Amino acid sequence: MSVRLDETHDPARTSWVEGANRHPQFPIQNLPFGIFSPPGHGPRAGVAIGDHVLDIKEIVELLPPEVVDAVSQRSLNRLFALGSEARVALRRKISAILSDPSWSERLGHALFRTADCTLHLPSTIGDYTDFYVGIHHAENVGRQFRPENPLLPNYKWVPIGYHGRASSIRPSGEPVRRPQGQSKAHDSDTPSFGPCQRLDYELEMGIWVGPGNDLGQPIPIGEAHEHIVGLTLLNDWSARDVQAWEYQPLGPFLSKSFHSTISPWVVTMEALAPFRTAQPPRPQGDPAPLPYLNDAADQASGAFSIELEVLISSETMRKAGQPPLRLSRGPATSMYWTVAQIVTHHASNGCNLQPGDLLGTGTLSGPELDQRGSLLELSEGGKTPIILPTGQERRFLEDGDELTIAATARAGDAIPIGFGPCTARILPALP
Amino acid sequence: MSVRLDETHDPARTSWVEGANRHPQFPIQNLPFGIFSPPGHGPRAGVAIGDHVLDIKEIVELLPPEVVDAVSQRSLNRLFALGSEARVALRRKISAILSDPSWSERLGHALFRTADCTLHLPSTIGDYTDFYVGIHHAENVGRQFRPENPLLPNYKWVPIGYHGRASSIRPSGEPVRRPQGQSKAHDSDTPSFGPCQRLDYELEMGIWVGPGNDLGQPIPIGEAHEHIVGLTLLNDWSARDVQAWEYQPLGPFLSKSFHSTISPWVVTMEALAPFRTAQPPRPQGDPAPLPYLNDAADQASGAFSIELEVLISSETMRKAGQPPLRLSRGPATSMYWTVAQIVTHHASNGCNLQPGDLLGTGTLSGPELDQRGSLLELSEGGKTPIILPTGQERRFLEDGDELTIAATARAGDAIPIGFGPCTARILPALP
Repeated sequence: MSVRLDETHDPARTSWVEGANRHPQFPIQNLPFGIFSPPGHGPRAGVAIGDHVLDIKEIVELLPPEVVDAVSQRSLNRLFALGSEARVALRRKISAILSDPSWSERLGHALFRTADCTLHLPSTIGDYTDFYVGIHHAENVGRQFRPENPLLPNYKWVPIGYHGRASSIRPSGEPVRRPQGQSKAHDSDTPSFGPCQRLDYELEMGIWVGPGNDLGQPIPIGEAHEHIVGLTLLNDWSARDVQAWEYQPLGPFLSKSFHSTISPWVVTMEALAPFRTAQPPRPQGDPAPLPYLNDAADQASGAFSIELEVLISSETMRKAGQPPLRLSRGPATSMYWTVAQIVTHHASNGCNLQPGDLLGTGTLSGPELDQRGSLLELSEGGKTPIILPTGQERRFLEDGDELTIAATARAGDAIPIGFGPCTARILPALP
Repeated sequence: MSVRLDETHDPARTSWVEGANRHPQFPIQNLPFGIFSPPGHGPRAGVAIGDHVLDIKEIVELLPPEVVDAVSQRSLNRLFALGSEARVALRRKISAILSDPSWSERLGHALFRTADCTLHLPSTIGDYTDFYVGIHHAENVGRQFRPENPLLPNYKWVPIGYHGRASSIRPSGEPVRRPQGQSKAHDSDTPSFGPCQRLDYELEMGIWVGPGNDLGQPIPIGEAHEHIVGLTLLNDWSARDVQAWEYQPLGPFLSKSFHSTISPWVVTMEALAPFRTAQPPRPQGDPAPLPYLNDAADQASGAFSIELEVLISSETMRKAGQPPLRLSRGPATSMYWTVAQIVTHHASNGCNLQPGDLLGTGTLSGPELDQRGSLLELSEGGKTPIILPTGQERRFLEDGDELTIAATARAGDAIPIGFGPCTARILPALP
């Protein structure tokens, strides 16, 4: 497992880029990769530093040929395919350049204000899979859909997941059209088709897949981390009324596939190395993971000290100049399975993971009420409304609502790093 | 709906290509598209004619520029994106050339024996969705998983579907590695991990998506056919023991994602025009489709007169020189929903379908025992074995078994057309 720290993690390292030092999201200790378009130009690979983006194209003369090819595409799939060694070398090079003031003049033209740029999806996502490893979410939601058995017998043995829709994943900022769909009211004998009445968000993290495996060749748990490039924030928008009616027996489908929002920056495993922590011990009485998912090193450092939060603002709030309201805040350690266990389980049947694939964790709710990662949980299925500062009630999302997921990794002396925003606003359903 | 017949459907039309006339699969009335590699050369677009493939590259001087670009790629995604008008024009041009003997000398070098070529996937499949429209299958399987309610209340309202795995779809001929996975025996308290013990096939058809829709923009039922390029055969290999343990609450996952096999030729909607037939009326008492799925023209001609069959041969049978055994034969009209309803429902929430996406129908079983499209159904969950000509029993698939799905479209005076084979052999699990 690549948990070695090097000079790129040194809390004393600073950057000559204006405003980068102690930047709450993107200090020089972070250096996330992404695809961006500078004003008037096409998509290219970049690295976030403070409130700026470095165009990697401008430093290719310093890089080995296979990395030059990988960072010269309109997506990061080839960079993801290279694996950690090349990625670490690239990170160290960029960190050295951005910390050495002698580069400041030479690279001035390669830095763009992020606010002036368009941010794209970092990769062409071949397949998207969504897991269900937030055990408190599984319990909260299970209780609403199946009061008699909220957590099914397989939950503590199988990292439950399902295939999601790749084509409708969009970067932060793109508005979400309220979907139409079939639903059936409890007091009706027949379903009807119309705009979703119970539109919700889901607070998740996403895992970017690296080199991956050939079809038929599993990924042993001890090698799983080599296939993870980094993490992102993910909002798995959900149409709860559609979901309740459609999900049996094959799982959620149109209730999820209308849109998913991700934060566009790939926060790498290298950047996250200082924030690794032990996977919380399983509650007494829970089974140990089966051997193919059980690895001492993974249990010792396979979780992350990341704090997640969700903010909402309604149109009325924004017009009144009010700041967004925090809906929840909680730790990413509420995952019952580690990211390595997710990857190994996914490939355990020989299913081939490919560079640029995205894996969602599933909704990450903590055990407390103010740590719940969806409105379905916060409003207890619509029974208990959230009161906004304007006095408005929210059981589910209304048109014009803007939802933001944010996260910060913090641990000991390490400089905290963030993920950038994962934000989108709800547009009314088509007439 | 494009059900017009033209000269390419004329039963009297013949081809100068040797062996093409009255070819059981690929007479000149079929002309399916695919991607193939001639001996010693790279992948390119081709058309099957009899036992040969025509390299489309060799006729590009006869085609308009946007079609030249579309057929000059290593996948057919751009051709699929063009829509039916361009596809019909291309079909008519190829039909004219292959029926006019004056072209025989000039095009001799552009024809390759199919047996000498490698056939690839026709498109880069962005997303793969599998439906569940075979109502007899849903009833047969539902009875085994949920004896008390085989057909759930949503079945006759919602074209049930779920996202599948795109990366593990392979063309006919590639062997299938028996997957490992978690399963739990009925008499055990805990699951175990190991090679699948209940490996099965599923007889399906696949739908190739054409131009598709933008995110947020549904496809009205009256326009659905414009977004369907053609059909293919699909074997949705299934690990039944893994499926039974993992599938709740989010649906089948690793029990399906280890491999799916398709026939590599895209039999176009144009080739299938003579075989269109009325969607069978719903049984008395069933609800009418909701308005967004209800279209008189679709009900009148949205189904296809296609006969499907499944053949098996064991290693012992092949060594003894015995021909494959037919496991089932049945009509494709056992679909409760039409392909147009599948497409419209999929996009009804605004989910964007893209050129080259693949949609599976789900297992197509007929009402009779010898029309069942999986071993799970034929052996009644493993209770009643199939007896092979060698005396071997089959409840589920054994290593070395070879499974073939085949299909023929027949109607009135039209020359019958086929789909080519959808075949694969089972390799033992990794040690």
